[in-house]
Amino acid sequence: MPRYALLVEYDGTPFVGWQRQENGLSVQQVLEEAAAPLNGGATPATTAAGRTDAGVHAEGQVVLIELAADLPPERLREALNFHSRPHPVSVLGAARAPEGWNPRFSSLGRGYRYTILNRPARPALMLGHAWHVPRPLDVAAMHAAAQGLLGRHDFSAYRAAACQARDALRTLDRLDVSRHGELVEIRTEARSFLHHQVRNIVGTLLAVGQGRRPVSWPRAVLEGRDRTRAGQTAPAEGLCFLFSRYAEALDWR
Amino acid sequence: MPRYALLVEYDGTPFVGWQRQENGLSVQQVLEEAAAPLNGGATPATTAAGRTDAGVHAEGQVVLIELAADLPPERLREALNFHSRPHPVSVLGAARAPEGWNPRFSSLGRGYRYTILNRPARPALMLGHAWHVPRPLDVAAMHAAAQGLLGRHDFSAYRAAACQARDALRTLDRLDVSRHGELVEIRTEARSFLHHQVRNIVGTLLAVGQGRRPVSWPRAVLEGRDRTRAGQTAPAEGLCFLFSRYAEALDWR
Repeated sequence: MPRYALLVEYDGTPFVGWQRQENGLSVQQVLEEAAAPLNGGATPATTAAGRTDAGVHAEGQVVLIELAADLPPERLREALNFHSRPHPVSVLGAARAPEGWNPRFSSLGRGYRYTILNRPARPALMLGHAWHVPRPLDVAAMHAAAQGLLGRHDFSAYRAAACQARDALRTLDRLDVSRHGELVEIRTEARSFLHHQVRNIVGTLLAVGQGRRPVSWPRAVLEGRDRTRAGQTAPAEGLCFLFSRYAEALDWR
Repeated sequence: MPRYALLVEYDGTPFVGWQRQENGLSVQQVLEEAAAPLNGGATPATTAAGRTDAGVHAEGQVVLIELAADLPPERLREALNFHSRPHPVSVLGAARAPEGWNPRFSSLGRGYRYTILNRPARPALMLGHAWHVPRPLDVAAMHAAAQGLLGRHDFSAYRAAACQARDALRTLDRLDVSRHGELVEIRTEARSFLHHQVRNIVGTLLAVGQGRRPVSWPRAVLEGRDRTRAGQTAPAEGLCFLFSRYAEALDWR
């Protein structure tokens, strides 16, 4: 069966998340149902690089889809974008998947961006796409604190209670906090992340940015390995899955 | 009665436009109803710098509101943002209005941005906030054509049939077309604009960008003064009201 990689953008607002669930529409269901007409009516299965939660967005989710039909990637992209209307899911590119390649297990690194709208007035244009924090944040302190989390550590303190990973050892390659006018952006990269890891890190850095905790605190939380000591879980709507990297060349069309 | 200026951001998607209408919810109605509890329950009247159409957004609409109560501007901003929830309308700032000042008639210049998403895949994250044009546009040709519209002219060819302005003489101070990755942005400034003027200009420049018309065409259309010769009216969703400038200092809080 021909296997394809898809590069997918979506607005997570109306979805229960990437993964199919009983309680509502998922991005996975939208894509799989859009692919059914290209698959003799049968709904194909998909796998994603990152199983984003409800309300989390993606600029560059990577998905594997297996179809009965052999189609030029351009036509697959166009057909999926036609059949997935009017949902806010768009296939930016399609490519033939290399043999043995898997978007989740072959990933060499993933990138996320978390956006905070840091101004007194609540969001209108960015509603659903940023965490609203009214009081001014000390971004330099947040960035300094973030650097204490880089490298290979046991991130038990920053994982969700429901996290299903076997162990909490992860290597954080990047965690940058920067201001762009009213927006504060946190950009992070790692080979893989634990469930809620980015949102728990953001919630913990926030306490530093608000001056409620010292710059040393997020590192101390890490070393304590105790989830109950970390900050709040930042809301889903500020999070966006940016990319997944692979050794294999994917010829996006 | 105390008069206040408001600086307002809104997502135009769910509204029938700025102005109150019988057929649905307007931004004006949301603001006026949010102000009623601050006005002894009576709905105050508002005036805006630009009466944006249905689906048109604003980053910096300027509004005049008259209230019975004398409130510190900070409190007015906070109260309006509280009472206008959950609508995507946010008061970024409030100021005491200078005597004789009017957001519409005192304006020295207004700015708009029009956004085109120029890529094969339809929008997901920018759905409702950009015009989707799948084939690559020649942005240099569009910019060159745009320069032929600068200055003081009779813009009859670019006004809506329903436009209520007495005459079509307007002075275009800026009309820049630039590419930012997949986005093509048209930024324009004038003391005032005719109804649909920006959207008709964008639709006409598009034909140049697609190679269907020469760079000289938008200027020839202008000189013809005949609306039926211009390009299509670009869709509302790509348009955003950016600012209105005044001689008076407004002390936004």
